[in-house]
Amino acid sequence: MVIYFCTTNRNKFLEYKEILSKFGVQIRMLKIKLIEIQAKNLEEVATFKANLAFKIVKKPVIVEDAGLFIKALNGFPGVYSSFVFKTIGNDGILKLMKNVKDRTAKFKAVIAFRNKKGTFLFKGECKGRIAFKKRGKSGFGFDPIFIPYKSTQTFAENLELKNRISHRRKALEKFVKFLKK
Amino acid sequence: MVIYFCTTNRNKFLEYKEILSKFGVQIRMLKIKLIEIQAKNLEEVATFKANLAFKIVKKPVIVEDAGLFIKALNGFPGVYSSFVFKTIGNDGILKLMKNVKDRTAKFKAVIAFRNKKGTFLFKGECKGRIAFKKRGKSGFGFDPIFIPYKSTQTFAENLELKNRISHRRKALEKFVKFLKK
Repeated sequence: MVIYFCTTNRNKFLEYKEILSKFGVQIRMLKIKLIEIQAKNLEEVATFKANLAFKIVKKPVIVEDAGLFIKALNGFPGVYSSFVFKTIGNDGILKLMKNVKDRTAKFKAVIAFRNKKGTFLFKGECKGRIAFKKRGKSGFGFDPIFIPYKSTQTFAENLELKNRISHRRKALEKFVKFLKK
Repeated sequence: MVIYFCTTNRNKFLEYKEILSKFGVQIRMLKIKLIEIQAKNLEEVATFKANLAFKIVKKPVIVEDAGLFIKALNGFPGVYSSFVFKTIGNDGILKLMKNVKDRTAKFKAVIAFRNKKGTFLFKGECKGRIAFKKRGKSGFGFDPIFIPYKSTQTFAENLELKNRISHRRKALEKFVKFLKK
């Protein structure tokens, strides 16, 4: 079974490929730049994009929307994580978190799968905290500043751990379970 | 002539009313929450929303999209100014700008006017810099931290100055000129 993964983020695609190959699911990267809606939550964004992609390719597609939600910053950067990463980056987040005691944060991912039958959502969350400085080289995005719950390493310091417990992994597991049915 | 101004921001509406009344243009607030696209620039967002609003009300409508673009932060918060204001606010921006020497910034506004004949865009820009602390109580949003070029006061300290030279004022003047033709 081949599923089209609509993304322009090569790192994200590789992460998917790595995880899904373990479950015998093949994906192909579909590089279309979709309009993104400015919505309050990842669910809306992912659903909107999956429907749009399906209209274009007329084949089973998945899209993913993910974000980092920092409690002390009222959920910033949230739905706009990608833009925030491109402009102020990890250094900007660390600056905003300077002298902030409550470092609670979580990553969320929503996968929207769209086929002839409809749109199906699969969600994953990974709780953790914001590090005091960037650490590690693997992964991408906010990985160097995110330490998952019960760990002392950032996602960027331990890619094996990331791929085992991440928001993305959890959402993908639910998706694979759905496919197997 | 009555034009519908589609916005959920009452402060913005009042600013428009104040400026447009001087030109004999009457506006009515149209409170519809429109889907917002996550676009690279204000022009796309405003055009998309104006077309959507026109489909709903079938009367001449304007929508405005505005943002603050800070040079040292690669254009952040830009198109997402409203979200950034709601989450990290002026304090967040000041924190990000701590120890940053180049404080250059600009406000941009794009008005999209949509009627039976099509969509027309009117742009305004106001250059200035980011203050070192919040000053003043009038205006809204990032006004307390924005000092326009050649001034020593923030927009929030001098509303009369703001309404005379702002990005919004400039865009509105172009719009009024268009209406008079």
